[in-house]
Amino acid sequence: MNRLEIDGMNAVKIFAERASVEQVEEGSELAPKFDENGLIPVVTTDAETGELLMHAYMNAEALAKTIELGEAVYWSRSRQVLWHKGATSGLVQKVREMKIDDDQDTIWIRVEVSGGASCHVGYRSCFYRSVPCGNDAKERGFETPMTLTFTETEKVFDPKKVYGDAPNPTKL
Amino acid sequence: MNRLEIDGMNAVKIFAERASVEQVEEGSELAPKFDENGLIPVVTTDAETGELLMHAYMNAEALAKTIELGEAVYWSRSRQVLWHKGATSGLVQKVREMKIDDDQDTIWIRVEVSGGASCHVGYRSCFYRSVPCGNDAKERGFETPMTLTFTETEKVFDPKKVYGDAPNPTKL
Repeated sequence: MNRLEIDGMNAVKIFAERASVEQVEEGSELAPKFDENGLIPVVTTDAETGELLMHAYMNAEALAKTIELGEAVYWSRSRQVLWHKGATSGLVQKVREMKIDDDQDTIWIRVEVSGGASCHVGYRSCFYRSVPCGNDAKERGFETPMTLTFTETEKVFDPKKVYGDAPNPTKL
Repeated sequence: MNRLEIDGMNAVKIFAERASVEQVEEGSELAPKFDENGLIPVVTTDAETGELLMHAYMNAEALAKTIELGEAVYWSRSRQVLWHKGATSGLVQKVREMKIDDDQDTIWIRVEVSGGASCHVGYRSCFYRSVPCGNDAKERGFETPMTLTFTETEKVFDPKKVYGDAPNPTKL
């Protein structure tokens, strides 16, 4: 026993119905809100460094599977499939802590990543470029367009070797 | 000079047009992707502790204003207005660093918060409850529904005193 039957009704039963603002904000029932596409945004940070690794989405099944496995399972919007992170690249994300926000419409997972990379472009984090802000932006005279600064200079892996000819998920 | 005319065309001009995957992923032009509602998700972490404070959205104007002011300006989906965070509560978020992800459809800001609270419920972070995951979830036998654990036990401020009778942004 003690196994979540994801394909049956149990995946749904681990989520409570959203009955009141007080229940959602101040209560201790897991009552996630999925948007009009059935998705909830997920913020994934490195459990060690606190660095933001990626921002993705889960549907109800992906969230249930993540809870069951203790490994991140997302919903790929570009490929429209369940996406057990690391299945292709080997860079599995072990969930050390999962949190949910006040109105229960966002998930935060703190993960350990074997191999140390989470970005399909090959960088450690998906967030490898910074945007000048405030005084930095003023000093540059609000360039048109603004120039990004690379904060990671070397890739952790070569995406061509890892993903081969798989289609790039980035959409214009 | 040296001021961004947000209401004019300059707010748009600081963003490049998205011409190719290579430009977006490997280039140094700021070319953000706004979704079908004109919004980009924003992950906000505490610049000191790395803690996730909130997850929100910006439209083009909010992003331009954040870049200009160096303070977080969001788009409130519940109230449908530009939302200069802290205008009501005084808890302004000073942006110490802004980053954008590989396909430029998510913003990450690392902020300093005067007063130390970012959540309208009164907690330091919006993420004040954890969800059991993996072995922890198994040990509990996958409760229906799952039980959350409070990781913050005391509120930093009393929302009634700060917001008065303003409508609660949480939607069921």
